[in-house]
Amino acid sequence: MSAGLLKENALQNTLLLDALQGRNHSRPPVWLMRQAGRYMPSYQKIKEKHSLLDMFQHEELITKITLLPVDELDIDAAILFSDILLPLQALGFDLFYGTQGPKLSPSEFSIDTLKCPSKEEMQSKFSFVSNSVRLLKKELKIPLLGFSGAPFTLASYLLDSDKHHILRNTKVMMYKDPAAFSKLLELMADIAILYLRIQVDAGVDAVQIFDSWAGVLDPFSYEQYCVKYLKKILKALPDVPVIVFSRGSCHYVKELISLSPTAISFDWQSSLTDLKKLVPEHIAIQGNLDPDFLQAEKNCIKQKVFSTLKEMENDKRYIFNLGHGLLPNTPYDNVKYLVDLVKSA
Amino acid sequence: MSAGLLKENALQNTLLLDALQGRNHSRPPVWLMRQAGRYMPSYQKIKEKHSLLDMFQHEELITKITLLPVDELDIDAAILFSDILLPLQALGFDLFYGTQGPKLSPSEFSIDTLKCPSKEEMQSKFSFVSNSVRLLKKELKIPLLGFSGAPFTLASYLLDSDKHHILRNTKVMMYKDPAAFSKLLELMADIAILYLRIQVDAGVDAVQIFDSWAGVLDPFSYEQYCVKYLKKILKALPDVPVIVFSRGSCHYVKELISLSPTAISFDWQSSLTDLKKLVPEHIAIQGNLDPDFLQAEKNCIKQKVFSTLKEMENDKRYIFNLGHGLLPNTPYDNVKYLVDLVKSA
Repeated sequence: MSAGLLKENALQNTLLLDALQGRNHSRPPVWLMRQAGRYMPSYQKIKEKHSLLDMFQHEELITKITLLPVDELDIDAAILFSDILLPLQALGFDLFYGTQGPKLSPSEFSIDTLKCPSKEEMQSKFSFVSNSVRLLKKELKIPLLGFSGAPFTLASYLLDSDKHHILRNTKVMMYKDPAAFSKLLELMADIAILYLRIQVDAGVDAVQIFDSWAGVLDPFSYEQYCVKYLKKILKALPDVPVIVFSRGSCHYVKELISLSPTAISFDWQSSLTDLKKLVPEHIAIQGNLDPDFLQAEKNCIKQKVFSTLKEMENDKRYIFNLGHGLLPNTPYDNVKYLVDLVKSA
Repeated sequence: MSAGLLKENALQNTLLLDALQGRNHSRPPVWLMRQAGRYMPSYQKIKEKHSLLDMFQHEELITKITLLPVDELDIDAAILFSDILLPLQALGFDLFYGTQGPKLSPSEFSIDTLKCPSKEEMQSKFSFVSNSVRLLKKELKIPLLGFSGAPFTLASYLLDSDKHHILRNTKVMMYKDPAAFSKLLELMADIAILYLRIQVDAGVDAVQIFDSWAGVLDPFSYEQYCVKYLKKILKALPDVPVIVFSRGSCHYVKELISLSPTAISFDWQSSLTDLKKLVPEHIAIQGNLDPDFLQAEKNCIKQKVFSTLKEMENDKRYIFNLGHGLLPNTPYDNVKYLVDLVKSA
């Protein structure tokens, strides 16, 4: 990757960007998916006064929440506080965050009536995103990540807003009407590109694409319905490092490598030792601790972190992270302990 | 595997047993997980009049339902109509089957108070199982399979009866108190052995162990909490062919091979072409069509079946099946069509 993609000038801590370039000679950088979240007492306090949707859509709240783990955990990268589904609002869907997870309204729609907004419409709709990025960039001495849901994952929430984890409608449509499903994915890719472009233009240092539900697919469908559209997004973002996160990533290593993203963020189904052998050196490796592991006793966490760091010793492209987002009931102390352990390595 | 394990005398169709021995020179045998289930109008008629628990516990209903796909689909193997959780009743848990999936009562318990029943207590509690097997064996000209949930999967339902798909309590206990979790798994293995022994002694031709929820584990935990106890079960059943089904099986190929079961039943995350190369010839391969694929149009199903059969052409240890159980809303016609396609190969 060209060093020109990376904006290191104002940063005091470039560990993440160094690792993304495969040239980190210090300890591995550490950040955690959903690092600004429900496990934090400070976050809970904000949440008592605001709805999740408010928190995702107001720049004062976005910046404040994004900075919580930066200030409290002294983490190596910040990630914009947002939600993977936000870009779907641009198609006229309303988002609700209830106790059963996110819901979209209307829940029924015709693909033919969905229309991709113009760049200008997107910018105007998501000005709170670009404003937040600009505010944060002034403040931060560590890299700032932007993100979006991946096309398959975005489509899955549109089709299976209810009982999402079963993905029944998504898979029925995928197998029954591949042409319509492909059309929907094409649109999802366009929306994701526009949404990521807003963040990149406002100044994020890298972006991550979350294909959080791609793990349910067979290799053929993964190629046809994930890889194809991830490729389109990567092609549209030649000017920023892109990390691809996919559940099932430990299965689809070959397919993810074929995308040649800046980094692949792995779930916990394979060992880093195995992944290190499979992933070519020009692609950085991020991951892959099971988020539930943070329920363990501190001595177990210590043992696990040390063995992980040993596994990845002297690996210049390794980024310490979880295999999925931090869970709500995670003990705050354990998260702090984990980050401190990696940082003192 | 010794040919002595297999009881072929009374059978007219030995395709499954031949494939389990790695010596099937005809078309591949076909049976489908949950082949007696909600997608069948004839099954729905029975279900209108009886609760699921009744259907699992009365020999007339068990035998009648077991025979539905034998008569209607002319399938190559029957599988006892039952549920993977039934053995948990032997520990004093009550089972309820509601619209949200199975629930166990009491939902809270102390592991120290759980006691493995004697062989005699098990036989008396599950006499409807042995009676059903004996009745079916008189009737059937194809092999009859017995089954049980695997230790990890059984434990997961005890610990996460509510919101089971998240497995939060299971994983918290696994990481926070490995000693207690191991103790629970030891008990689950003992119960599964006793339950499978009843079926084997009554005359089933093979058994399948379902580790339907093992796919959430990292390789280390899979080794420690699945492989170890599956090994114990296999050791206790030297006199019957054992098929091991595990979600995540495409990840844990190496670990499953180390068990050296008669067969491994794979989910759909890897291609059979890849699996064929990985699995040594003395282990049969079962799988691995995504059950949602049966929502596709007939021409797509035809194409898929033909390409699968081509992939496994002349493979003497291959058993056609799905990668998981048949789903409730599957079109009956498509299931019939699938079976006919494989049989006419």
